[in-house]
Amino acid sequence: MVRVLGYCTYRGTNFAGWQIQPHQDSVEEYIERALSQVLNQPIYITGSGRTDSGVHALSQPFHFDLEKKVDLKKMVYALNCLLPEDIRINKMKYVDSSFHARINAKAKEYVYYLQLSSKDPFVYDKVYLCPYHLNVKAMAKAIKLFIGKHNFSCFTSKTEDFVGFMREIYSANIKFDKERQLVIFTFKGNGFMRYMVRYMVGTLIEIGRGKIDSTFIPTHLDQPQRAIISFKAPPQGLYLKKVYY
Amino acid sequence: MVRVLGYCTYRGTNFAGWQIQPHQDSVEEYIERALSQVLNQPIYITGSGRTDSGVHALSQPFHFDLEKKVDLKKMVYALNCLLPEDIRINKMKYVDSSFHARINAKAKEYVYYLQLSSKDPFVYDKVYLCPYHLNVKAMAKAIKLFIGKHNFSCFTSKTEDFVGFMREIYSANIKFDKERQLVIFTFKGNGFMRYMVRYMVGTLIEIGRGKIDSTFIPTHLDQPQRAIISFKAPPQGLYLKKVYY
Repeated sequence: MVRVLGYCTYRGTNFAGWQIQPHQDSVEEYIERALSQVLNQPIYITGSGRTDSGVHALSQPFHFDLEKKVDLKKMVYALNCLLPEDIRINKMKYVDSSFHARINAKAKEYVYYLQLSSKDPFVYDKVYLCPYHLNVKAMAKAIKLFIGKHNFSCFTSKTEDFVGFMREIYSANIKFDKERQLVIFTFKGNGFMRYMVRYMVGTLIEIGRGKIDSTFIPTHLDQPQRAIISFKAPPQGLYLKKVYY
Repeated sequence: MVRVLGYCTYRGTNFAGWQIQPHQDSVEEYIERALSQVLNQPIYITGSGRTDSGVHALSQPFHFDLEKKVDLKKMVYALNCLLPEDIRINKMKYVDSSFHARINAKAKEYVYYLQLSSKDPFVYDKVYLCPYHLNVKAMAKAIKLFIGKHNFSCFTSKTEDFVGFMREIYSANIKFDKERQLVIFTFKGNGFMRYMVRYMVGTLIEIGRGKIDSTFIPTHLDQPQRAIISFKAPPQGLYLKKVYY
């Protein structure tokens, strides 16, 4: 048995997310179906993690097992012919059979694109078109408050967590591309729970709008009592950028 | 009665083109429906011309009549709230009641985007992803052969034309954006018949691939006898850029 690590890029718009779900289109199912067709046997893959419905991935790793080695370059070519236009396999390589795409992940990086524009027919499914005026400087300062090891229980929809909702954010920053009116959020951390990036971005947007001030972040981090927060940025701006092993 | 000239931008991917057609979604129908809803009376619009299924417009002009003046800025805002995300009204202004969006058009400009890439999940509906190696220099030289007043009967699917398929191309050029591997074709002329830009681009692609040489163009322009040519570039790369009055 040999283990293969693959990397794919996908536009999440037309999928109910990464994970296989009954009666819905998922990225995982399309890749498994294409692999099973090329190899003429059922193949099951394990992703580095899940993405929500409408969320994109620039590079999502996954692993699977084969009985014996095949020409991976040819297989990537064949898979890309079978897969829909919104999923692309970038590369595949053989890894040690103990490697696990999810368990071995040391860090993950997400990027979120927000465009200051009310309507743009060519990008509405790839960035969040934000119609509000935002104080980007205040947001760029506030995002630093997420850095470090914290209990993020207020920033996820997850209800139970075996490490007590503790996650570490290694870096977080905001860049503003003035020409394209793009606010680009980047987060790198050891793990992200369900909706966590979208709750953090949503909170920063409310700070940018002046609806709340930045003290909201420290008062909602490391809380033994979970408080539901209602600022969740929409999925179309979010991209899984890189998984570090 | 007052006449209004409007400008809209649309992503053509989800439409059967500009023109209203039974049982299919068209840009014209969505705009008419939104206008009729805002004004509470049936409104019919006249576009500067048609676009094919899947073709985009950066700025498509259209006109329509109102019984009396309204606040156009407010109307544009209301229309953009009602219209789907892939259609945006950019502006509207009052024009002389003799103005006609199609008849008064003096020139039109189209742009075609071709990306040298086999698969890109984020742009496949906005550029033509061309998997072939292309000699862009040869194409940039050949595109100049279209400039001038010619009989374009070989470069359209139209079967009858009241000016004998004569159209004048004022300018035609190709730029290559090396970083993004984008080949950008621009055509400006007094009029373009059905599929004309796509036949011209398709012919240039065949020249770039080395399948035909550039003499193909003069031998198919100004032909009294129509020869069917089979090189039609796909719609997703084509944009109506500007209509000149």
